[in-house]
Amino acid sequence: MASTARSPKEELVARFLDRAARGDAAQVSAMVALSSFLLNERGKNGWTALMLSARNGHFDVVNTLLSEGCDKMLVNKSGQTSYDIAKFWGHKHIASLLANGKSGDGHRFLTGKDVEGHENYFSREYLDRRCEKRTDSRWLKGKQSSPNTVYLLFFNLNPFVMSQPEELSAGVPAIRLCRLRWDSVEELLADPGTTLIFLGVEKQTKPLSESSPEDEDGLAAWFALGVDKCPTEHLKLQHSNGFFLKSPRPGLLQLSENEAGVIAQARSVLAWHSRYSFCPTCGSKTIVEEAGYKRTCLKEGCPSLSGIHNTSYPRVDPVVIMLVIHPDGNQCLLGRKKTFPVGMFSCLAGFIEPGETIEEAVRREVEEESGVKVGPVQYVSSQPWPMPSSLMIGCLAVAVSTEIKVDENEIEDARWFTRQQVLDTLLKGDHKVFTVPPRQTIAHQLVKHWIGVNANL
Amino acid sequence: MASTARSPKEELVARFLDRAARGDAAQVSAMVALSSFLLNERGKNGWTALMLSARNGHFDVVNTLLSEGCDKMLVNKSGQTSYDIAKFWGHKHIASLLANGKSGDGHRFLTGKDVEGHENYFSREYLDRRCEKRTDSRWLKGKQSSPNTVYLLFFNLNPFVMSQPEELSAGVPAIRLCRLRWDSVEELLADPGTTLIFLGVEKQTKPLSESSPEDEDGLAAWFALGVDKCPTEHLKLQHSNGFFLKSPRPGLLQLSENEAGVIAQARSVLAWHSRYSFCPTCGSKTIVEEAGYKRTCLKEGCPSLSGIHNTSYPRVDPVVIMLVIHPDGNQCLLGRKKTFPVGMFSCLAGFIEPGETIEEAVRREVEEESGVKVGPVQYVSSQPWPMPSSLMIGCLAVAVSTEIKVDENEIEDARWFTRQQVLDTLLKGDHKVFTVPPRQTIAHQLVKHWIGVNANL
Ligand SMILES: [Zn+2]
Ligand SMILES: [Zn+2]
Repeated sequence: MASTARSPKEELVARFLDRAARGDAAQVSAMVALSSFLLNERGKNGWTALMLSARNGHFDVVNTLLSEGCDKMLVNKSGQTSYDIAKFWGHKHIASLLANGKSGDGHRFLTGKDVEGHENYFSREYLDRRCEKRTDSRWLKGKQSSPNTVYLLFFNLNPFVMSQPEELSAGVPAIRLCRLRWDSVEELLADPGTTLIFLGVEKQTKPLSESSPEDEDGLAAWFALGVDKCPTEHLKLQHSNGFFLKSPRPGLLQLSENEAGVIAQARSVLAWHSRYSFCPTCGSKTIVEEAGYKRTCLKEGCPSLSGIHNTSYPRVDPVVIMLVIHPDGNQCLLGRKKTFPVGMFSCLAGFIEPGETIEEAVRREVEEESGVKVGPVQYVSSQPWPMPSSLMIGCLAVAVSTEIKVDENEIEDARWFTRQQVLDTLLKGDHKVFTVPPRQTIAHQLVKHWIGVNANL
Repeated sequence: MASTARSPKEELVARFLDRAARGDAAQVSAMVALSSFLLNERGKNGWTALMLSARNGHFDVVNTLLSEGCDKMLVNKSGQTSYDIAKFWGHKHIASLLANGKSGDGHRFLTGKDVEGHENYFSREYLDRRCEKRTDSRWLKGKQSSPNTVYLLFFNLNPFVMSQPEELSAGVPAIRLCRLRWDSVEELLADPGTTLIFLGVEKQTKPLSESSPEDEDGLAAWFALGVDKCPTEHLKLQHSNGFFLKSPRPGLLQLSENEAGVIAQARSVLAWHSRYSFCPTCGSKTIVEEAGYKRTCLKEGCPSLSGIHNTSYPRVDPVVIMLVIHPDGNQCLLGRKKTFPVGMFSCLAGFIEPGETIEEAVRREVEEESGVKVGPVQYVSSQPWPMPSSLMIGCLAVAVSTEIKVDENEIEDARWFTRQQVLDTLLKGDHKVFTVPPRQTIAHQLVKHWIGVNANL
């Protein structure tokens, strides 16, 4: 007993921390009113009341403690602030509350995004993929002919879309996908040149508009349909304002976030089919299986048929894309390809090679393209890029050398830009000396992220 | 002037911070001796002397400030501690100094690794790939016949190795690669069934053992050689103790870190050649180009010949592997496949699908395999896994539900393990109830990382 005995003050602190951890805002408030010293006290493990309430998602307690003037910049033994703790455990409201305190830094427009986690264009999962249904041919067959099922049509990997009517287009996407129904595509489905991909089901279950026996489960299925002959004649009858949207730019970047997410999946898988019709191991023809996610070799005895091989599955190419920061912390490195619009600079990028980590690929690519050597690398966020099927892995990288030596086979120019120049560009002031790619690109988001995290360096 | 006038105290603080930022340890020490209040003062941007000296890599100043008792747990407006700042800017000694202060948490064995950045097995870049040499056929030709060039031989994707002599094997890898020379492989190179891959040059330039005109640049080149007939007879003459090491386990995991890094590259590229001999777009034969990093279709008019297509380049398959943390912070989710050794559990993992971000792939895979829903996801580190050519992307993930519902097609069991059970397993105590994969796997490193970062939750 003696060794664990606590002083009255220790008792009081322990009780206070316990109330905060349990979310008892009234008691926390009352105790602080009586004993204001409690506000920033730490328990045995180094945690304050603010950390505990942030950890457990108690918004009211966090709010109370902040308005009582507690110190939100204290960290625990792992070096985490209450903000870090709230963010790590997914309490976004609390993280926002902790981020938007008094420490305004003039770049508030970046903060919300950072707290919510990055959502890059092409990244939203509007559908639930329901991978286990890919081998359930009965279920798939039923859904195919359901009047609630949505079909997206592609020709030459370009989706069938329509423009929004003029009067509606303020603030809404200029282009949207044509959501076709069974009766519009029945004929196309029968064509041997058509590739059918099951995309998933709508996440948000709502009463289906038409009742049918296939839809007893209440799930609205989506499919992508790739055709090898232009079906415009056929479709013009029903969709006179529809057209095939050429990719990549600016075409596919004009969709809503939801539709962009669906296109990222559909176009990547269709692009794989268009390039991988033959077995790479033996050169024979293959057939499509598993609702569009597998191609199986038709030649008996082909090595690809014993065991599991990546030759049978869609390809995803990991790419590193990085914003390189000058050792002085106030400049970043951007480069331009010959094919870029005049005045546009972007982050350096390149495919990850076999046997490389993300971090080593960043270092190699930056040095190859610009001659600049990179030390620490920090992952920021990722983005699918369906031209044809890349996974862009976005990083910040700290340079340990500054001299630029451009590899002219890769880029035509690379320069250090100051924080002020970048801010001018992002804020679209009159003083901008260059442009960056549009907000839909992860390059744009990385630049914005850098301005945000380093606002007060 | 009036608006920018500073009080004498502000002047003093500004001078003190300036000395710290410039690395003047003597002045910093003298000023603190006279005015101890300076120690934790902040400048206008919220930075302390410790943060500034950590930012600029001044070890002596950091050391001085710490021994004077400054508060290392303060954060700047971006929520970074001095430790975070030192780590971000690559000052490892300073980060170590800041990490190993008085806040010992009983898990010191994890700290050093964390500061140094993760180096997973298969991740070390022992060679400089020198990608630009892949199209320099004259240089390649010269290096091929140089007596300083190293050849690694593979048959059925297994490398030619030898066991270390018994007396040397304490503390050194049990297996090492046979580094063959031109005279041993000249005959094999002439065989049409042989695939030659340029791996790179040794990073550490040392005087080459034999002088030759091809090595005027002082670079020692490495190549991998894949053969389609067992060449044992041929090699036994010179390397009587050599043998082909079967992969994956435990074979390839017994190499040194340096050699494992080389194997990660070589085996992935050779595995691609063994599976992708034919053009996937038209089914024709292909030829190897660019020193083993490209296959070009031989059929005139094939679509793969116009433009750049991923069909011509080695494939890297991105995989997410994640340690899922219970909402209570004190348990983690591990699963086992039927093929695992008895009692072994590991992190859940799966291939990233077309159109997915890293974070969404983590959520989908965890829910598919275990029924557990995941909220926030945090990237930790990555690892190439050359069986055949994966990039393992390691994450921590926070569960937002706890009920487990195993998908028996994927795994046979999944369970929540407590922090104590995991610690017992890592520390190899007598009380362990399960095992995890060996240290060479990123699964092991993720588990260790979790124990480290959450030591004081
Ligand atoms: Zn085949
Ligand atoms: Zn071809």
